Amino acid sequence: MSVFTPVSESQLAAWLKNYSVGALAALEPIASGIENTNYFVTTSQGRYVLTLFERLPATEVPFYLDLMAHLARHGIPCPAPIAGLDDRYLSVLNGKPAALVTRLEGASVDNPGPGECADLGGLLGRMHLAARSYPAYLENPRGPRWWRTAARDVQPFLSAAHWRLLESELEFQALRRFPDLPRGPVHADLFRDNALFERGRLSGVIDFYFAGVDCLLYDVAVCANDWCLVDPAADRSLDPARTRAFLAAYHAQRPFAPEEREAWPVLLRAAALRFWLSRLHDLHLPRPGELVHAHDPDHFRLVLERRIAQAPPWLAAP
Amino acid sequence: MSVFTPVSESQLAAWLKNYSVGALAALEPIASGIENTNYFVTTSQGRYVLTLFERLPATEVPFYLDLMAHLARHGIPCPAPIAGLDDRYLSVLNGKPAALVTRLEGASVDNPGPGECADLGGLLGRMHLAARSYPAYLENPRGPRWWRTAARDVQPFLSAAHWRLLESELEFQALRRFPDLPRGPVHADLFRDNALFERGRLSGVIDFYFAGVDCLLYDVAVCANDWCLVDPAADRSLDPARTRAFLAAYHAQRPFAPEEREAWPVLLRAAALRFWLSRLHDLHLPRPGELVHAHDPDHFRLVLERRIAQAPPWLAAP
Repeated sequence: MSVFTPVSESQLAAWLKNYSVGALAALEPIASGIENTNYFVTTSQGRYVLTLFERLPATEVPFYLDLMAHLARHGIPCPAPIAGLDDRYLSVLNGKPAALVTRLEGASVDNPGPGECADLGGLLGRMHLAARSYPAYLENPRGPRWWRTAARDVQPFLSAAHWRLLESELEFQALRRFPDLPRGPVHADLFRDNALFERGRLSGVIDFYFAGVDCLLYDVAVCANDWCLVDPAADRSLDPARTRAFLAAYHAQRPFAPEEREAWPVLLRAAALRFWLSRLHDLHLPRPGELVHAHDPDHFRLVLERRIAQAPPWLAAP
Repeated sequence: MSVFTPVSESQLAAWLKNYSVGALAALEPIASGIENTNYFVTTSQGRYVLTLFERLPATEVPFYLDLMAHLARHGIPCPAPIAGLDDRYLSVLNGKPAALVTRLEGASVDNPGPGECADLGGLLGRMHLAARSYPAYLENPRGPRWWRTAARDVQPFLSAAHWRLLESELEFQALRRFPDLPRGPVHADLFRDNALFERGRLSGVIDFYFAGVDCLLYDVAVCANDWCLVDPAADRSLDPARTRAFLAAYHAQRPFAPEEREAWPVLLRAAALRFWLSRLHDLHLPRPGELVHAHDPDHFRLVLERRIAQAPPWLAAP
């Protein structure tokens, strides 16, 4: 259960008087999500998602909402924030910063094949191009700085072997930063459950609340580590057919630079490291209301080990 | 045929490289419309309308596009302009200012009943409220200033009786301006063919290219003169059931001020006058490509005469 701040129909109906979306018809809590309170909202006008921001600093929320608005008006199928009569996206509901965004049609795909991976690659490339003109800046909140803090936090809960792996990967990554890779706003959490398909077409990308500015290739690596596995529980290798389809479709929109080809095996490991760390953190240092959704951290440890084992030999020396 | 500037698939495909909407799948000219060249455009991402602005001054087009973008992000179901990679809505295609907007689902209703009139009234009220925070200004291009020019242009084509009617109505209106009525951006052309319904619900409002800043009540009067007639060819009276439903739904969103109640019969006549004049102008002084779409001016002369005949007695004296 992820409703941290309950909202009643009468509270919402009063709040909606500040919007141009018609009268409230239905309000339904959304169980998933570990960061915010979310409700499906139906009005006489359309279908929306209401989000109450529980943890994000109020100074950071506009970065996410404005990014979604920017992408939506570029034609990227993502939730579009709805402005209130005061012309702002962000408001206050029951004491929390709150926003209303459009609800996209479609459902996520559990086992994406090469076709779905290609759809994702094309959209990710277009999204990166559209985001280039987005003027705001927020450093990726789960970037290298956060890795080091999180590693210290979870150290007491790790076996000696796992701590050695973590320490050595942090060191490996610290020695290999790529300041010249193309950067820009990235989704940074575009797992298969954050993409919707409808009638066989990628109909939307959701949940931008981990977005930030980072290497574009990091976003590509996060996707590959999730989308391009055939049977994630059995084999964490990147499936060649899915990976080829995904990268080729992305490349057709935004061709990879030579330095990105070189950085690819490193960023695959960085992306695995980030989610291993956050899942360790969520498991061992949960906040109230989070436990139900804690994912198994071992999956991303195994992804990381697999990427290390399969890294090209020239990567061994810094 | 209203394609003044043909666009080929290869020309459009090249132009779309500046957008994030995916690959071109289909291009289909739209026959209706007397001002611009319009095409339906389908891409791998979605459905759009391409408009090449044939007559509108390039300095005015941003007012319309930004207004549509403003309303769309307030949740008003209207075409949302798509920004290019340069972050602009307006671009150039085959030498003409051009823009891509989302294509709405639905179809217009020929014979709206009280239910549809209520839907329209509610949406019009919400649209006026949402437009309040729109900062740009463009005077209604078909306002009193234009009436006088158009009247001079069409005078040679009018019978003596019709010229007397026109002259006397211009004088009547000139003596009754309402500087204190609430003003703001208005659609100003929201006839039944500019509203789309889908599954019994008002799904969109289109064609904002006559919009401008004017009395909000003028917009209400334009709608009433078109939507609230039962059989427009037989009786130009406002049908009480439709008019009540329309005005009550509008009033529930934005309550009418006392001075608006007083001005109502005058603005109904102003709205009839404006369309009588433009139809006379389109009929007698057509531009190339327009003839097929010229509407019968007599309809709005008869609407005007009916509004005059049914005006409350206190209106006779200025």
